[in-house]
Amino acid sequence: MMSTRALARTATTFAPPVMEARRWLEGVTHPADRPLINVSQAAPVDPPPPQMLEAIAQIVLTEPEAHLYGQVLGLPELRAEVAGHWSDSYGGQIRADQVAITSGCNQAYASALMTLCAEGDEVILPVPYYFNHRMWNDMAGVTTVPLPTGAGLIPDADDAAALITDRTRAIVLVSPNNPGGVEYPAETLRGFFDLCRARGIALIVDETYRDFDSRTGAPHDLFSDPDWDDTLIQLYSFSKAYRLTGHRVGAMTASVARLAEAEKFLDTVAICPNQIGQRAALWGMRNLSQWLAGERAEILDRRAAIADNMPKLAAQGWKLLGCGAYFAYLEHPFAMTSADFARKLVAEAGVLLLPGTMFMPPEIPGGDTQVRVAFANIDRAGVGLLFDRLAGLPFAHRT
Amino acid sequence: MMSTRALARTATTFAPPVMEARRWLEGVTHPADRPLINVSQAAPVDPPPPQMLEAIAQIVLTEPEAHLYGQVLGLPELRAEVAGHWSDSYGGQIRADQVAITSGCNQAYASALMTLCAEGDEVILPVPYYFNHRMWNDMAGVTTVPLPTGAGLIPDADDAAALITDRTRAIVLVSPNNPGGVEYPAETLRGFFDLCRARGIALIVDETYRDFDSRTGAPHDLFSDPDWDDTLIQLYSFSKAYRLTGHRVGAMTASVARLAEAEKFLDTVAICPNQIGQRAALWGMRNLSQWLAGERAEILDRRAAIADNMPKLAAQGWKLLGCGAYFAYLEHPFAMTSADFARKLVAEAGVLLLPGTMFMPPEIPGGDTQVRVAFANIDRAGVGLLFDRLAGLPFAHRT
Repeated sequence: MMSTRALARTATTFAPPVMEARRWLEGVTHPADRPLINVSQAAPVDPPPPQMLEAIAQIVLTEPEAHLYGQVLGLPELRAEVAGHWSDSYGGQIRADQVAITSGCNQAYASALMTLCAEGDEVILPVPYYFNHRMWNDMAGVTTVPLPTGAGLIPDADDAAALITDRTRAIVLVSPNNPGGVEYPAETLRGFFDLCRARGIALIVDETYRDFDSRTGAPHDLFSDPDWDDTLIQLYSFSKAYRLTGHRVGAMTASVARLAEAEKFLDTVAICPNQIGQRAALWGMRNLSQWLAGERAEILDRRAAIADNMPKLAAQGWKLLGCGAYFAYLEHPFAMTSADFARKLVAEAGVLLLPGTMFMPPEIPGGDTQVRVAFANIDRAGVGLLFDRLAGLPFAHRT
Repeated sequence: MMSTRALARTATTFAPPVMEARRWLEGVTHPADRPLINVSQAAPVDPPPPQMLEAIAQIVLTEPEAHLYGQVLGLPELRAEVAGHWSDSYGGQIRADQVAITSGCNQAYASALMTLCAEGDEVILPVPYYFNHRMWNDMAGVTTVPLPTGAGLIPDADDAAALITDRTRAIVLVSPNNPGGVEYPAETLRGFFDLCRARGIALIVDETYRDFDSRTGAPHDLFSDPDWDDTLIQLYSFSKAYRLTGHRVGAMTASVARLAEAEKFLDTVAICPNQIGQRAALWGMRNLSQWLAGERAEILDRRAAIADNMPKLAAQGWKLLGCGAYFAYLEHPFAMTSADFARKLVAEAGVLLLPGTMFMPPEIPGGDTQVRVAFANIDRAGVGLLFDRLAGLPFAHRT
């Protein structure tokens, strides 16, 4: 007898791409003169700067409450710091009670979705998308409606409008984009905001990489609307700016009513964000703005190194589809799927990157020819080395 | 026109009880000679011991990887430490790859459930239940089937058998129990294990309070079964034993296949447990066993203080329904609902505790006369003071 039992929630989605890619390394040895170049995960490779390590150690030793339960929605001082910083930098009015701290930005996304969706609802994601957004949609019983972006990887609000149904609850934008790297123009974000407001759905904007935007000034004007919180949910991560990936601290900026709903989810899945990490993030915001400016300059130089080295790859038939934030998103010229290419690359060239198929559903064309390079992990010299290895591959080309 | 739109997931459940209770404190002032006694949350009130604070500070300063992303399923050394410790103390074979580290025990429960259930599935919880289990069931679209426990608060496997349907995916036991305090006999756990195995469902055993069990030796023999992992999922928290509530570290012990499924959820909701907290827990397991024995003795003395002070309350018509772990679970004698009683108690006696209605659905009788006291927060003198205040209340009794 066939079972008619529905799949458990985790069985509705795929394995974590970054962990799956790590498994491709098993059994592969890398010669000493050609060490592995790992550009699979978007992560700073160094710990926070020494002055922050000292500050964290002091917190550990002198703040007893840093070891005890805190408020579900986060450390009040950090919520206020984010609210003040956002108000200044976006040119709007954001109050501390409109900011929640979460255990990383993935959790901010998950909690936002839980406040919006029931089983069978729909959320629109431009493709290529961030895979953890897709995974959470799957596990939450939410249908992902892919929004193709075409050349330039910039989504179009008019295209999205045609995809909205009576089950649509939100459109999700990531800017600067993961995996595409592209920085969405302010008008693009405004167009989506106006669309979402007109249709009564939420606009989720994930600005994890905001601190590495190449533009100066506010990347959008959405917070300048006094009623921004009837539509906008903004997500942020402290992981990249302050190299706090291991501490798990992110934020969600939204209406007070939505945060009260999110509190139910956050209490049940985390109780509170870890207290040391929250205090480290607070210290970073208060003390590392100059240091962060230097970090941004370094990331922008790595981005420039991608452009500078691109001719080597272009000569081999590669194309750069998008570049910015931590990512270069590329089209490879080889006569194999991107998944096969990524696996072969580990042994052939000592490079670990993620195939485009991890960033879109199979029915959307393009994934098989695309790959993501998380270039924040390597400096200018490393980018040159990576591109030399990619330019020297012996694989047959597509015809 | 009435909307037929389904409730968003968070709208299907209630506000976090501990945060709701905290709001009852707003606007209430406590006289200097009668400070608030807060027995609402199960939490040590002190930070870890000084030697652990020093160890954590050293980790912060000397282990760069403690600030960077780690594996989704946790620090390998901590997984191995738990596996070894569990194998020793339960008398079974538990391997490191059968242990996952989570961002607290709530998250372990959430992830276990996600690997088991689809929308509309059922999970059996003895009542009174731990409210966050109920909240996660609600938000995951899982129906909570309450299992009444009667006098003694010990659930019966035969009663549970009658509640199993073709949608039932698990039975959840918490021992020592929250909120009831009672330690389930080994035979009770064995009975549930045999039932679950026979019916092809999972047995989830939450042993958050295992370190404060009054019994010596293993509290059950389930891990001695070489195939324990076809049925058993055990949950644990490092928060209570090592006073690490603010660090958010828990564990789930289950089959390798189940942990591979849980990895999808944990990656998406947390990426990894925070790295400092995991290393603190590891240091605690390796270095604080003697200290923990003292902590246990102290908690057992506080439990004894409940029994010693109980005659004062019994004379007023109170009953002690269960006592152990961090909790005393009591029946009050007053002619009002437990929710009204708990709110009035804040102003009248400077005591914050949680009403029984937070631990069961409204259709189960008893909640209105019951309250939970989290006595780990107060020492022997504090228990005496608390009971004096409760014994002196001017409220009218039920007739």
